[in-house]
Amino acid sequence: MAVQRVLILGGGFAGIHTAKYLTEMLGSRKDVEVELISEENYFVFQPLLPEVAAGGIAATHVVNPIRELVPKARFRCCRIVEVDVANRQVLIAQGEGLEFVALPYDHLVFCVGKVTNFASMPGVAEHALAMKDLGDAFKLRNHVIRCLELADIETNPLYKAALLTFVVAGGGFSGVETVGELHELVTRSLKYFPRIAASEVIFKLVHSQDRILPEMPESLGAAARRILEARGIGMVLKARVKAASRERVYLGDGTHIATRTFVCTVGNAPNPIAKAVLAAGSLPEAEIGGKKTGLFLTDATLECVDHPGYWAVGDCAAIPNPNGPGFCPPTAQFAVRQAKTCAKNVLGRIDGKPTQAFRFKALGMLASLGQRSAVAQMLGVELSGFVAWFVWRTIYLSKLPGFVRRVRVGLDWTLDLFFPRDITQMQLIRQDRLQVNHYEPGEIIVQQGQIGRELYMIVRGEVEVVVPGAEGGPENVVAKLGARDVFGEKALLEDTKRTATVRAAASVDVLVMSRGDLRSLVGQFPVLDDYFAKLLRERYPATFTQAQDLTRALSDAEPSARGEAEPSSRAQPASTP
Amino acid sequence: MAVQRVLILGGGFAGIHTAKYLTEMLGSRKDVEVELISEENYFVFQPLLPEVAAGGIAATHVVNPIRELVPKARFRCCRIVEVDVANRQVLIAQGEGLEFVALPYDHLVFCVGKVTNFASMPGVAEHALAMKDLGDAFKLRNHVIRCLELADIETNPLYKAALLTFVVAGGGFSGVETVGELHELVTRSLKYFPRIAASEVIFKLVHSQDRILPEMPESLGAAARRILEARGIGMVLKARVKAASRERVYLGDGTHIATRTFVCTVGNAPNPIAKAVLAAGSLPEAEIGGKKTGLFLTDATLECVDHPGYWAVGDCAAIPNPNGPGFCPPTAQFAVRQAKTCAKNVLGRIDGKPTQAFRFKALGMLASLGQRSAVAQMLGVELSGFVAWFVWRTIYLSKLPGFVRRVRVGLDWTLDLFFPRDITQMQLIRQDRLQVNHYEPGEIIVQQGQIGRELYMIVRGEVEVVVPGAEGGPENVVAKLGARDVFGEKALLEDTKRTATVRAAASVDVLVMSRGDLRSLVGQFPVLDDYFAKLLRERYPATFTQAQDLTRALSDAEPSARGEAEPSSRAQPASTP
Repeated sequence: MAVQRVLILGGGFAGIHTAKYLTEMLGSRKDVEVELISEENYFVFQPLLPEVAAGGIAATHVVNPIRELVPKARFRCCRIVEVDVANRQVLIAQGEGLEFVALPYDHLVFCVGKVTNFASMPGVAEHALAMKDLGDAFKLRNHVIRCLELADIETNPLYKAALLTFVVAGGGFSGVETVGELHELVTRSLKYFPRIAASEVIFKLVHSQDRILPEMPESLGAAARRILEARGIGMVLKARVKAASRERVYLGDGTHIATRTFVCTVGNAPNPIAKAVLAAGSLPEAEIGGKKTGLFLTDATLECVDHPGYWAVGDCAAIPNPNGPGFCPPTAQFAVRQAKTCAKNVLGRIDGKPTQAFRFKALGMLASLGQRSAVAQMLGVELSGFVAWFVWRTIYLSKLPGFVRRVRVGLDWTLDLFFPRDITQMQLIRQDRLQVNHYEPGEIIVQQGQIGRELYMIVRGEVEVVVPGAEGGPENVVAKLGARDVFGEKALLEDTKRTATVRAAASVDVLVMSRGDLRSLVGQFPVLDDYFAKLLRERYPATFTQAQDLTRALSDAEPSARGEAEPSSRAQPASTP
Repeated sequence: MAVQRVLILGGGFAGIHTAKYLTEMLGSRKDVEVELISEENYFVFQPLLPEVAAGGIAATHVVNPIRELVPKARFRCCRIVEVDVANRQVLIAQGEGLEFVALPYDHLVFCVGKVTNFASMPGVAEHALAMKDLGDAFKLRNHVIRCLELADIETNPLYKAALLTFVVAGGGFSGVETVGELHELVTRSLKYFPRIAASEVIFKLVHSQDRILPEMPESLGAAARRILEARGIGMVLKARVKAASRERVYLGDGTHIATRTFVCTVGNAPNPIAKAVLAAGSLPEAEIGGKKTGLFLTDATLECVDHPGYWAVGDCAAIPNPNGPGFCPPTAQFAVRQAKTCAKNVLGRIDGKPTQAFRFKALGMLASLGQRSAVAQMLGVELSGFVAWFVWRTIYLSKLPGFVRRVRVGLDWTLDLFFPRDITQMQLIRQDRLQVNHYEPGEIIVQQGQIGRELYMIVRGEVEVVVPGAEGGPENVVAKLGARDVFGEKALLEDTKRTATVRAAASVDVLVMSRGDLRSLVGQFPVLDDYFAKLLRERYPATFTQAQDLTRALSDAEPSARGEAEPSSRAQPASTP
């Protein structure tokens, strides 16, 4: 008998559990080979990500190596390039040379989930923090601590206020848990920052509906709201995020919030692999109200409709809901149970036995709110506050895969009860890539009189260069600049005050470069060296001569370190900011 | 009475302990203000970094927030720009806008340590991993796991061998501990990688002298060598690293080692802040044999010679060794004791009391070798093997600051005795910056017949384009390319086999860009868009027309995902690599 190959794509709840159940059911059978493919070599226990972001649990404690979780499945850590339905093979890019390899299959299980997509909200991709994977949680925690460190020594009150304003978009589980946990992190850390008062810290939860936690019974959503509001977390309801810039979150009603920390938990899109297969029409796509969903349409047995051997589990699948109309909700609970049914049915197909329909009723729902508080609905009972929090912890600890992780998370939680939060800000990888900033119309990019240290190049959109009128008269727009124009370049040569204000005239993206950025860039890119050397020679023939080498000019010590340029900051020594 | 300001620069062993002792001695006195300045907001317990790299301890467990360690000192997380000795002030860049602020001082304590510097060895900065700070350890651990994941599915035996070869340069404490700990990580993780045999893994320790651990008694160095060699770790002694490329480490004798993992623990340089102050002649610099050291020359009381109010502690200081000729060794033990003396003497100066000379005899030396083995010299007794390892753990656990960290590291160690190592490979931040590869003369950059997926631009040096002669005849050099030349650009349009071999004709640096890299770059940089669009139009007028937009051409799905191009990899489906 030929070996049957089952290929599972994706290493989330759905993929891991399908592989686990299937290999367990197979026991020592050699006629079926199970292979799992994922881009990461670990599985993330996503429900605890908000707590990782808040420093209650160490990042490494909510992940498990996939090889350890499903030791009997083959595992391949690689990128999926394409699913070739016609030839029943998956094309992957693997190994050192990113060699393309085609993996044939008899059964293919899609467990690819969804991805974050902020494309509909300008500036959000550039300036918001997401809450989807481990890297997001890790980044958010370090970002929040960094804001506290900066606010502690910031002398400009507007900057300080923005550094201490934390905005979370999305009133679902992820958003509510994130805002609650972050609030706990910040309030517990304040004692280390003597120059920040508790009253200076602002938290806001932005949500499009009129109540939070819409997946839960109305009474629990209201309870969660009361608990969060009692802590001073502001609710911005019936509001949608329209755009974001480096300094603001813009809402649909035209208002904005000045902040340096914007966590966006809304904005999902189909995984590109699912999208490509469905767009090609190779497998059936689910529609809701005539609108394509980007989800694989399966029957009650989790098999893609009319396509034997193709299965879909979890967030990428539209599986008939056994408890009512519509499809199953995209939750971990459902994914795990679906995985079990899928494993049984794949094996049933291979052995020529009947398959069974997916049946499951959710056991309950839980949302942590931080500070030993939660809301929960368990087996019909509604709980809120400390008891719900205790239930929440107990259940999640029991669900966490692996004994070692359970010990570690248990210890994290125990120590967290007695000791302060860790305020270590880890800058593990220094970010030296170039940054694109987004600005909405009217926002100031460069303020006259400020000391400039960066060069700007317009990628998209238009800006106005403005100088104030004589003797308090109306301002004058002295120039308009568009894509490919450069401004602020004088900052590359010396730290002088900006001679004009530059303002976004439209929705605009600008590339921001410090002296160091440009130095490394022209060092790597001779083409850019030519370009900028020419630009500077034309605009500053006196200071920047033909003979002078751009790299050398940029690599000199910071100009202001040499003295004269900056009387203002020099004249105002530290005292007590 | 005016408040006396003591400024401490640096947050390592020396800085933290000086601040700690000084604030403790001051008690509730209000007439002296102590401020500590560091670029990171945490202190790293460096002796345990090799264990972090080997996954025996979680990264977050060997760091402490500085604010927690020295709660009574003021703390400022910012960049030090310049020490202005003439005006007795330190210039820093702080806060959101990187505002320059001048901090005046009455006493200034330099605790800035040393930095890594690989400048004398071409390619090492680009391709070696360091072992200096937390980020290095974290990166190394993830890199090693990644090599195992790649080797597990690699089909090219040469690539696989290089992925499984681990080279550490430097036979001092850091290098010896790193090679021993990494060996433990790899051997313990192999059980998860069914396609890697233990015999395929190679470890090499490269050291310039004829014995390792030269700081220790000869017998212990020999014991450490025996223990490591018994595990199969190869010693490459009396050898210096000359250069490194992406694929090789070059030694002084002209030989090389093919590897993907090169850890370089040699190559220190003065901190740039110390260098600038000493170069300006503002403070006295120590010399050894007429050669400048980059170290602050102090007297026995740790005060800079002839410069009252200036102090230096730890690795940046040349302090007369109380136990013999020369200066104190740059170890944590000495730094901590020096910090105590320094704190006393600063206070003595302020109160007009006599200062005292630094006296200390090292208690012993310890080096962990991994796998429950170490070498130690304690109070005159020499130990090696398990007992030394037990002593090593006990002492380090007791030295670790903070109760919570001690509990966590203790638990890490306990769990590590009973459970497998964690093989989670965390790619917390996807690296999307451009990469410069270094090649030594004769190395192949692009191999004829391989499938190309990257474009190369020469930053520095010269390459030869070579095609084999007809019917096995001698090869022909068909072109030579130099700085600013581009090759391999056809890969941007389609995945075809390379039509010629490109070889380094000299020591050469090339910028490597994937389709995705270039796409994001031309998206951000219109200037580059023009440049590459022109280049492609000139060289490929048929496929790349004037009307075609470069960004769109690059943003199409991977060419090979669409089919025809790649018969070779398609024709060879997975089976069992």
